[in-house]
Amino acid sequence: MKLFDGGRAPNPRRVKVFLAEKGITVPIEQVDLGKLGHKSAAYTAINPLQRVPALELNDGTIITESIAICRYFERLHPEPQLFGTDARDAALVEMWERRIEFHLLGPVSHIFRNSHPAMKEMEVPQVPAWADANRPRVMEFLGLLDRELATRRYIAGERYTVADITGMIAVDFLKPAKLAVPEALGSLKRWHEDVSSRPSAKA
Amino acid sequence: MKLFDGGRAPNPRRVKVFLAEKGITVPIEQVDLGKLGHKSAAYTAINPLQRVPALELNDGTIITESIAICRYFERLHPEPQLFGTDARDAALVEMWERRIEFHLLGPVSHIFRNSHPAMKEMEVPQVPAWADANRPRVMEFLGLLDRELATRRYIAGERYTVADITGMIAVDFLKPAKLAVPEALGSLKRWHEDVSSRPSAKA
Repeated sequence: MKLFDGGRAPNPRRVKVFLAEKGITVPIEQVDLGKLGHKSAAYTAINPLQRVPALELNDGTIITESIAICRYFERLHPEPQLFGTDARDAALVEMWERRIEFHLLGPVSHIFRNSHPAMKEMEVPQVPAWADANRPRVMEFLGLLDRELATRRYIAGERYTVADITGMIAVDFLKPAKLAVPEALGSLKRWHEDVSSRPSAKA
Repeated sequence: MKLFDGGRAPNPRRVKVFLAEKGITVPIEQVDLGKLGHKSAAYTAINPLQRVPALELNDGTIITESIAICRYFERLHPEPQLFGTDARDAALVEMWERRIEFHLLGPVSHIFRNSHPAMKEMEVPQVPAWADANRPRVMEFLGLLDRELATRRYIAGERYTVADITGMIAVDFLKPAKLAVPEALGSLKRWHEDVSSRPSAKA
């Protein structure tokens, strides 16, 4: 088994934090995104969509998509349960995981890719107006998340889950996208400090 | 239990096709998207993100996000298994489900929302350049999917799964986005006819 990693990029980091929470070690092969290693012929043969991470199983099967890789490890190593417990709890974790992806990580990524000078050759064409359109949506969702986190410790309930991993990484991704959590959102800040203080956050 | 539905809109339809494949009937309450029913105060109290569908459980819990709702029913009614079987198969289903969402359903939705005159009051501001940027990406992904479907019957393997539901609805959504599957993509067309001929496709 081998994990194709992409350093500090948000998606590979989701998988590494997840593995750290599970206490799982997997052999890693670095794909150098700065040198466009994910667009090489060798890596395109692994993932035709040219994205990291990817997991190669011992039988040669390739699993891409961060959450698909995380779910694979959840099945092999169920504890601690990071995708929820019973049907209701698992549905709430999946709901929050997806809300964070569609209303925070995704939009922040769009802002970064469509406005940051470093992304000019990666995102062709850059559409600055799309970055502009997403900024207020991100700020609105941060407000919603703050109100939710005023009522409980973690994003999907009283237990730490994969939704907290995606949420932490999405909030960390605000900085390269040149955004920040407003000071007034105290519950969101409290939660972000909490999850960032876990040893897994260094992964 | 009650499902807040939105008629023929793609996301509510994903859940209804899924339920039809499972043979599950759930009481339905229509939310009239044409009359902006999803933006009403009553519905905003159910889903602050103002999206359909939403599932209300008997204890009052609200589950939003189509796939979270589908996973909830998969746990209650495991057969037929639409999210895969063992760890490897489930990971491949999740991988394809997400590839279809991020590279087809999502981009087609962005094209529709940012270019269709009917969406002018729903998507503010419309960014036509973002629609333009996504058209070639959608066509490229359709080509990739066609090559994959030349090797097997369904998107994630030899069994029909939730990835086929999302895929069928994404392809159906090309039309309102003023796109079409090129004639040359024979395997994709064969698969689309196959999945569209299932009784569940009428849901």
